[in-house]
Amino acid sequence: MKPEDRFVESLRAELDGAARLIVGPGDDAAVIGLEAVTDAVTTDTLVEGIDFLSGEPAARLGRRAVSVALSDLAAMGAWPDFILLTLGLPSSTAPDFPLAVSLAAARRAGEFGAVLAGGDLSKATELFLTVAAWGRPAGDPILRSTARPGDALFVSGWPGEAGAGLAVARARAGLDPGRGEGGWTPEMLPVAHETRLLAAFRDPEPRLALGRALSRARLATAAIDVSDGLGVDAARLARASGVCLVIERAELPLSPALRSFADVAGGDPLELALGAGDDYELLFTVAPENVGRTADPPAEWGVEVRRIGRVEAGEGAFLEDENGRRPIGALGFDHLEGPR
Amino acid sequence: MKPEDRFVESLRAELDGAARLIVGPGDDAAVIGLEAVTDAVTTDTLVEGIDFLSGEPAARLGRRAVSVALSDLAAMGAWPDFILLTLGLPSSTAPDFPLAVSLAAARRAGEFGAVLAGGDLSKATELFLTVAAWGRPAGDPILRSTARPGDALFVSGWPGEAGAGLAVARARAGLDPGRGEGGWTPEMLPVAHETRLLAAFRDPEPRLALGRALSRARLATAAIDVSDGLGVDAARLARASGVCLVIERAELPLSPALRSFADVAGGDPLELALGAGDDYELLFTVAPENVGRTADPPAEWGVEVRRIGRVEAGEGAFLEDENGRRPIGALGFDHLEGPR
Repeated sequence: MKPEDRFVESLRAELDGAARLIVGPGDDAAVIGLEAVTDAVTTDTLVEGIDFLSGEPAARLGRRAVSVALSDLAAMGAWPDFILLTLGLPSSTAPDFPLAVSLAAARRAGEFGAVLAGGDLSKATELFLTVAAWGRPAGDPILRSTARPGDALFVSGWPGEAGAGLAVARARAGLDPGRGEGGWTPEMLPVAHETRLLAAFRDPEPRLALGRALSRARLATAAIDVSDGLGVDAARLARASGVCLVIERAELPLSPALRSFADVAGGDPLELALGAGDDYELLFTVAPENVGRTADPPAEWGVEVRRIGRVEAGEGAFLEDENGRRPIGALGFDHLEGPR
Repeated sequence: MKPEDRFVESLRAELDGAARLIVGPGDDAAVIGLEAVTDAVTTDTLVEGIDFLSGEPAARLGRRAVSVALSDLAAMGAWPDFILLTLGLPSSTAPDFPLAVSLAAARRAGEFGAVLAGGDLSKATELFLTVAAWGRPAGDPILRSTARPGDALFVSGWPGEAGAGLAVARARAGLDPGRGEGGWTPEMLPVAHETRLLAAFRDPEPRLALGRALSRARLATAAIDVSDGLGVDAARLARASGVCLVIERAELPLSPALRSFADVAGGDPLELALGAGDDYELLFTVAPENVGRTADPPAEWGVEVRRIGRVEAGEGAFLEDENGRRPIGALGFDHLEGPR
């Protein structure tokens, strides 16, 4: 038996069955049973050196790749049913890596009731993981294109923590040029803050429960997941909807851990909150009559949400403070621009 | 607007709409309308230097990535509805490359009535393309695991031509160490044969019409697409079904172009037919009472099929000639083994 076939057999032995997975890994394609007449479908890729640092353990990577893909479904108000996992594997990869990463991915999907239906392996120069995911919209899908002037703008969680977590992870790996003599070290942070920031980067939480609640109760008029930075993703939502988004500086949450990081490493926590990616929080708009219900969310939404601004007629995304407005649409990561 | 957003806008402007694509590229996820109660789903990856040579034009790559993924659906007897395309892009990639490869992928999918629903972009060190595809089984899905002793073994097309085509492409690119003094050059082949071999490698045809016909008429008891080599893929089908597959040497088709190649480049065309990958032909088994209907296929199947052997009780895959049998399960490509 070839190594690839041994991998598939090991994977099949470890995976739990699921009634709606009619044919699972190991055939030419998987066959799935469908419950809905519409499905939300997405795919997301993590590439070594771009989206994660070299040397990350398999279990973390498989988990994170799934979380990131499911975040796209969360932003549509959809709940995941199935995933496919593709691995590009350098020849230096340990023999047990593909199985470890696949099982971690399957477990993460399983936390939300979703099933690893299949995937693909290829040799590659650098490690990459691609997850395709699909599932059922809870109500009407929440689009990017349907925000309306007069809506309030909300965000979940604490934007910028993941970006600070990446900086901490880079410093720990000796990749940060600012580290060392005259610079900062992660040990200068309170342990609880360092832990929190690293977790925000390495183990993001797809806001599936929030997205489902917003869709079911028709609370959100539009939504996007903040994967590339609050600034650029706000501008994307604004452009898709043909509106202007205004973030009010005084309302933007800057977490204690993010403030600690800025104190130690230098820089402005506001810039990290606006320009760092990898948060996977939901940025969404709410009609005025629903702001009260949204601002005091039940525990089952799984995350705090805050009103941070408003939707106006016009175009673009801006940060507003007592001195006026500045555009923030260029703040963030672009997958076709220069190195991160 | 960021380059990534310009790419998505250009793509949206070029793509035709489709009624069942409720939300297309540009939102967090696509939303698709479904017609069936079951779907076949698969994903396949092409990596530069592994699955294709550097410098291949965008249009060819997008087309081939889709063909290869749809071949998995063909082997299930399924017809494609949607694809997702993920691109890993080196910084040296030309600015118009992502759009060109995406449009080529969308067009190839469109030849079969399928729709590009969305995708993802990432920077990467090497170029890679991952396609996820899904669609409706025409009848019952054709599995790998349901061949029975007494069945006849069939293959479509001319196995080995794609492997020879890869060797020709490598020689043309100056990558073949056997080329030059005392070696062979592609110019030594008849032009029609060189063209045919290169096309077999660069532009494979997913056998969707054949798979659909086999599924609808319940002609095939089991099937696999020959992506890694007839030997290894026959062994996979045998293992999944718990049977022994015997290929009869006298029945295995060796095309005139493949024979030309072996004459010029040296080697045995039989070994190429058994051990070279990338053919994307269908290897399938047929119950005795259906052999007559299968051996004389109608034109709409789109490809010639031939009985090349039989299914017996036992295990493994073998080539049989007047001198006996030899195992062929190790002949072919494995995605976890050493360099190709």
